Amino acid sequence: MKRVLLALLTSGFTALTIGGLATAQTVDPLPSWNNGKAKKSIIEFVVKVTKKGSPHFVPPSERIATFDNDGTLWAEQPMYLQLFFALDRVKALSSQHPEWKDKEPFVSLLKGDVKGALAGGEQAMLEIVMATHAGMTSDEFAQIVKDWLATAKHPGTKRPFTEMVYQPMLEVLTYLRANDFKTYIVSGGGIEFMRPWTEKVYGIPPEQVIGSSIKTKFELRDSNPVLVRMSELNFIDDKAGKPIAINQHIGRRPIAAFGNSDGDLEMLQWTAGGTGARFALIVHHTDGVREWAYDRKSHVGKLDKVLDEAQTEGWTVVDMKKDWKVIYPPAKR
Amino acid sequence: MKRVLLALLTSGFTALTIGGLATAQTVDPLPSWNNGKAKKSIIEFVVKVTKKGSPHFVPPSERIATFDNDGTLWAEQPMYLQLFFALDRVKALSSQHPEWKDKEPFVSLLKGDVKGALAGGEQAMLEIVMATHAGMTSDEFAQIVKDWLATAKHPGTKRPFTEMVYQPMLEVLTYLRANDFKTYIVSGGGIEFMRPWTEKVYGIPPEQVIGSSIKTKFELRDSNPVLVRMSELNFIDDKAGKPIAINQHIGRRPIAAFGNSDGDLEMLQWTAGGTGARFALIVHHTDGVREWAYDRKSHVGKLDKVLDEAQTEGWTVVDMKKDWKVIYPPAKR
Repeated sequence: MKRVLLALLTSGFTALTIGGLATAQTVDPLPSWNNGKAKKSIIEFVVKVTKKGSPHFVPPSERIATFDNDGTLWAEQPMYLQLFFALDRVKALSSQHPEWKDKEPFVSLLKGDVKGALAGGEQAMLEIVMATHAGMTSDEFAQIVKDWLATAKHPGTKRPFTEMVYQPMLEVLTYLRANDFKTYIVSGGGIEFMRPWTEKVYGIPPEQVIGSSIKTKFELRDSNPVLVRMSELNFIDDKAGKPIAINQHIGRRPIAAFGNSDGDLEMLQWTAGGTGARFALIVHHTDGVREWAYDRKSHVGKLDKVLDEAQTEGWTVVDMKKDWKVIYPPAKR
Repeated sequence: MKRVLLALLTSGFTALTIGGLATAQTVDPLPSWNNGKAKKSIIEFVVKVTKKGSPHFVPPSERIATFDNDGTLWAEQPMYLQLFFALDRVKALSSQHPEWKDKEPFVSLLKGDVKGALAGGEQAMLEIVMATHAGMTSDEFAQIVKDWLATAKHPGTKRPFTEMVYQPMLEVLTYLRANDFKTYIVSGGGIEFMRPWTEKVYGIPPEQVIGSSIKTKFELRDSNPVLVRMSELNFIDDKAGKPIAINQHIGRRPIAAFGNSDGDLEMLQWTAGGTGARFALIVHHTDGVREWAYDRKSHVGKLDKVLDEAQTEGWTVVDMKKDWKVIYPPAKR
């Protein structure tokens, strides 16, 4: 009886151990990635910094990874997806703004001529943003964003915008977090435009979202405290603004950074320039069939200097067409 | 044999269960607090928002607690402790600045006349801060702060500044984190002055420290990326700046806030004004023997409006003299 019990226990234990090891070895953390240099470099980096006793070991509290959003985690063509939001808002608000009928960039926008509206450059863009992103409380703005996302669709793919995210990058986020990384978004996009949905879509909570912002002011309305969004720029989280914002929000230098355009250059330099093991990756949009193909001459997500620096510095370059088995996650409905 | 085994197992199980319950009931999470209204209100709030099935239950991701630093987590008399740092830096740097011999506020400072130096008000303060907090990289500044803390002592208590923290508040921080709260500092003090030591002293990591800041700029020095601290104010994290910074950094409204002066009014209002269970606490400095006694007329940590609003709103007011068994933690050496 005792021997049977012992045998049972022993065999059970052995099976469990082997089963556990087998699982650890065979589960692919990045199933949507084709085997190749890019995938290998991600896994090698994670193993290197998480393995106890490794000369490259980094304690969990210092495992900070920062991700650009537009073109790195979700699509950015034919224009930044936040602009679709702004345009829909201009239409929705136009009845309250009769003066827009005679005023650019609104005249063109309301006629559906986006290109004409944006011909006014940065100033036109700024006017569109302020007209649609300011004047309400932060809570009200979050609700407006959520309501828009619930029904809006990308005109090209007809997908909800939150399904224009890259499945292979979702797997990288999950893989890093499973290895005790803290994952952050560091985007030129609006911080309060992203926060209402990043937790659900990327698993990234609001406190780990960094972005561009307009100023807010604190007010008591019938003794109810609110933050009102003002028509004044606060911070542009792009280019050299990215390391500055990372330092301001996180106070630690990331050990891994992910981007796709020249706007990410300084974030990648800041990350790669630290001591110890470092990882820098860029997504190169090479798939004109399944997504879009663009780089050095693109009006959105221009990838020129960073493509050169990636070669010099040995950063990982993802060839979207070759490296990714799928682009988007399965449709939700 | 079977009966004996069963009895053993059963009695073991019972002992374990009762032992577990007894432990949960008898370990006091706030041993340095005298039993009274303040201590009771903290514990009741934590139990209310963490108990599953409670109508006041708050999911862990939304358990955000914000703490003022000066006068709430550590002492602020006879002047803000960061000013001692600035003054020591003026002395250390004076040989490199012969022009200070003829220039206020530096002339007075170098003669040891702090009161005279600060007679120049905000402008004098700003000049002292810029002369001592700007002009180096962020990494260099962090090292300067650490080096200073390693030897500097408070002139009154002769304690290292990092031992001028309040033991009862350290217990509140630990208690909240044990209940899955994220604890943040939201201070008028310098964000990069606090970050080098808050993790060790308070268990609060750099990414959960919010404070006032000067601007920084990104530079490549011999292709080495650095952030240089500039002589230009970026943000004053005080009064209405506190809810603004909380929204900017965290993107969620705290459910609990802790302060001690009128500079915390808007943070307390913003926190208390949300829906669901809310907690607001102020530390009232009433102990002229063990610490300092000051409130409505103090030049540092003025507590006037908030003391009135606490009465009206039913916020918890800590009477330091009556509520705290000890002020500081045991000396480290």
